[in-house]
Amino acid sequence: MKVYHNDKWINEAQAGISINNPGFTSAQTVYETVRTYGGKLFKFQRHYERLQNSAQAMEMKTDKTCDSLVEIIEKGIILNELKEAYVRIYLTKNPDLIIQIKELPQINPQIHTKGVSTDISQIRRHAYMHNGTAIKTTAAFDVFLARIKKPLNLYDMIMLNDQGYVGEGTFSNIFIVKDGILITPAMETGILSGITREVIIELAKKHRIECQERMVGEKELFEADELFLTHTSVGIAPISKIGEIDYPVGKKTLELIEALDAFTGNI
Amino acid sequence: MKVYHNDKWINEAQAGISINNPGFTSAQTVYETVRTYGGKLFKFQRHYERLQNSAQAMEMKTDKTCDSLVEIIEKGIILNELKEAYVRIYLTKNPDLIIQIKELPQINPQIHTKGVSTDISQIRRHAYMHNGTAIKTTAAFDVFLARIKKPLNLYDMIMLNDQGYVGEGTFSNIFIVKDGILITPAMETGILSGITREVIIELAKKHRIECQERMVGEKELFEADELFLTHTSVGIAPISKIGEIDYPVGKKTLELIEALDAFTGNI
Amino acid sequence: MKVYHNDKWINEAQAGISINNPGFTSAQTVYETVRTYGGKLFKFQRHYERLQNSAQAMEMKTDKTCDSLVEIIEKGIILNELKEAYVRIYLTKNPDLIIQIKELPQINPQIHTKGVSTDISQIRRHAYMHNGTAIKTTAAFDVFLARIKKPLNLYDMIMLNDQGYVGEGTFSNIFIVKDGILITPAMETGILSGITREVIIELAKKHRIECQERMVGEKELFEADELFLTHTSVGIAPISKIGEIDYPVGKKTLELIEALDAFTGNI
Amino acid sequence: MKVYHNDKWINEAQAGISINNPGFTSAQTVYETVRTYGGKLFKFQRHYERLQNSAQAMEMKTDKTCDSLVEIIEKGIILNELKEAYVRIYLTKNPDLIIQIKELPQINPQIHTKGVSTDISQIRRHAYMHNGTAIKTTAAFDVFLARIKKPLNLYDMIMLNDQGYVGEGTFSNIFIVKDGILITPAMETGILSGITREVIIELAKKHRIECQERMVGEKELFEADELFLTHTSVGIAPISKIGEIDYPVGKKTLELIEALDAFTGNI
Repeated sequence: MKVYHNDKWINEAQAGISINNPGFTSAQTVYETVRTYGGKLFKFQRHYERLQNSAQAMEMKTDKTCDSLVEIIEKGIILNELKEAYVRIYLTKNPDLIIQIKELPQINPQIHTKGVSTDISQIRRHAYMHNGTAIKTTAAFDVFLARIKKPLNLYDMIMLNDQGYVGEGTFSNIFIVKDGILITPAMETGILSGITREVIIELAKKHRIECQERMVGEKELFEADELFLTHTSVGIAPISKIGEIDYPVGKKTLELIEALDAFTGNI
Repeated sequence: MKVYHNDKWINEAQAGISINNPGFTSAQTVYETVRTYGGKLFKFQRHYERLQNSAQAMEMKTDKTCDSLVEIIEKGIILNELKEAYVRIYLTKNPDLIIQIKELPQINPQIHTKGVSTDISQIRRHAYMHNGTAIKTTAAFDVFLARIKKPLNLYDMIMLNDQGYVGEGTFSNIFIVKDGILITPAMETGILSGITREVIIELAKKHRIECQERMVGEKELFEADELFLTHTSVGIAPISKIGEIDYPVGKKTLELIEALDAFTGNI
Repeated sequence: MKVYHNDKWINEAQAGISINNPGFTSAQTVYETVRTYGGKLFKFQRHYERLQNSAQAMEMKTDKTCDSLVEIIEKGIILNELKEAYVRIYLTKNPDLIIQIKELPQINPQIHTKGVSTDISQIRRHAYMHNGTAIKTTAAFDVFLARIKKPLNLYDMIMLNDQGYVGEGTFSNIFIVKDGILITPAMETGILSGITREVIIELAKKHRIECQERMVGEKELFEADELFLTHTSVGIAPISKIGEIDYPVGKKTLELIEALDAFTGNI
Repeated sequence: MKVYHNDKWINEAQAGISINNPGFTSAQTVYETVRTYGGKLFKFQRHYERLQNSAQAMEMKTDKTCDSLVEIIEKGIILNELKEAYVRIYLTKNPDLIIQIKELPQINPQIHTKGVSTDISQIRRHAYMHNGTAIKTTAAFDVFLARIKKPLNLYDMIMLNDQGYVGEGTFSNIFIVKDGILITPAMETGILSGITREVIIELAKKHRIECQERMVGEKELFEADELFLTHTSVGIAPISKIGEIDYPVGKKTLELIEALDAFTGNI
């Protein structure tokens, strides 16, 4: 597997950064996770904008354009002989630009039909925001601590913000279906503007499903008709369990899974 | 310069960590900064305890004992032919143990006589605590962001906690002298238990200077008679300026500098 | 109905305070609600201590002793020809001391067997604490606003604190039963130390039911086996509903109702 | 002195409210403080709107129009034979409407030339907001507690909000002059939209003085060139002292005092 590192392609086993790189010594590293559908990068422009936004917040920058990053990744897909790619882009303060391009892990199809188990993390989300979205950095201590403390049998942990409002998963956004309405925490909660989240909100509009972005109380999770997570690699993951409470995989969730499939099948 | 990395001594230029190391991908790295006085490690036992505490909070561990770390560092001092050493110990999740041992940078003697300029950071300190002290991790985003945004002509930035109480510098603790009494933010403020801070509190006791550890309002900085920072490499750095306000280098500060000199000269 | 007001007994219709009394102009009024069991005041000493604590926090005081207040109330019970009394003691800054002594309202026995409906208030509890307990003042704006906004068909609203942890009802404390263990929000949550709450904790000890006082996440309400409120006039009110979620009136709750009955029957 | 109470004029000594009035039992009372200049009510329409806003937040209302309140007050000025009036309007839940109309207390002219002494309160401001402004209620426990704890020799206490940003005085708003710019805490800080504050912001515009409404750090108080309070009865009160720090009564402050004098002299 070849990794892109500062204009070179090197073997993954050799890929590393200096112990003097601020990307290591003080986690001055921003990143993005992207995937392809049918071999084509999905919503890359938005990922690029978000990477630039995170970088700017930390007074970092890359001189690479969006197009040149696409070119690099497409080259990596060929180099690594991939069918469907899972891509991680790291930008450090030094500045180092590292791009890992791997085969997208097989997604268990039961995720979409049976749903996933979650719980509410004891760790609160305290996001650092820039232009209305959380900075996506390796220094998101709260997120990674919540992930460290996640029981092995759970898919993801739902994090509340400092005031106890529903925030986001450690690698996902969360949606509630209640009385036919879609509800998701507003950006003001202090969360990441997930690209899949953005797509779902657009698709809901198209399908004339009302979607509310607002502060969400924890209680609403327990009164929900349906619940699902969204994230890049899997798209929509219905929630079948929060802690000890069970949820069905519901109609609206399945409708949106189908809508997303149609959307990603046609890019 | 030789660097210790997982039982090997390698050249600094070669020292690095894998891009798959959680110490890089999600900043699961804890660290300590230690120095010698007269070639002898200062308060190493306390640094070791703090490293273990940080590691435990993140469900990491090292099988190295305190003594074996001392041995490694003493070997590094000889290998690198150092007189006075400045040491950085990194422990990552992988787990990787990296120890950098360099010559202690020359300390400008004017720091102790003329003091240093500081300001109050706009970034608030939101520490993650474990057993009553902040976890010392490279993922302290608030600390490093405050450092990124520090004007070049300033020595350190003073951070307030989420409620606006005085916390700590980005690499130092802060003390106030008011009416002959020493005042420093309590651990409950959400700060790191600096080793030099601990030593100063002990020395104050010996010198019969009353020392209050409590919540400190920002106003107290501006009504202070004297102010100083404490940190490992310099010991005590008197504050001569916060923003636009000037402070004298005062008697109690000089008394404590002398007391610390005596203490570190006799270890 | 006679009301005690500054050493006089007056008709309730005539009882009022001056519009210049700080107890009106700036709500500098503290109060207690007490009841009798079998005609005898219940835990009056604790109510008196709490009144004094609230008064002290607001730099108010009464020169009445606990015994003299008991004497006044006992006289009022006779004057008003009551069987079981419900007493409100107001102390204002002026200082005015007002004591209302009425017949205890009939308690619907179904409360104990069928339970009561509640919901979670949108208004957060932001208590002002003194010596570890909330000050019981008419100026508890959050509490009264939550009560104003309570739907008519509900018994009480459960308030979360500023961080979203479970606090207390607007006139009650809350207990959870989970796996045979009793759980109730710790005082550090920022709540009132309800006298019935204190009695229940003591009774649990006697009955060898483990009782945890700690921070309680909202989720724990929804994972509870049983839930109940405690307050002066009713003692224990089992919760049968929070929002849309139903709860059974459980065994431990009934055991504690019985224990409280026995306790109050023997004072 | 006659007091208006629910359509009657009664002697102040007789004016009171029932001990069963929610305006007493749970401080469900909103209020406004108004004054005249040259015998004419100042900005009454705005005071009326604010009263209605506070009332609405607490699900109270009055059926009195703005004009009918003006009529009542003007009648009270004649009844009480006043030259310059100081008016307090209370509206309780019952609903009771009480209006006190007294002679405006003599204002010490030295306030405007020598300034007033203040300090920063230990009590934090936790305002309940409605439509972007604090609800003006007798149940503002934080405000009245700060006033209770105010040393006698001080004019007012400056309150910080929950996050430690500069909020407002216990009966005033605060302005900073720095490098010729006027700065005042934004409404988002959680403060009352003082009528005099609103007038000063308008006057600044007319006088082409830049005025910033934004979050204000405590440090800015100590780096200020000039500082002043604004409130209904006195207009502008220059600050000459915060805690131990002295401030001059500055040029911009005097310019605005003059501008306000001209404005109030011509209503």
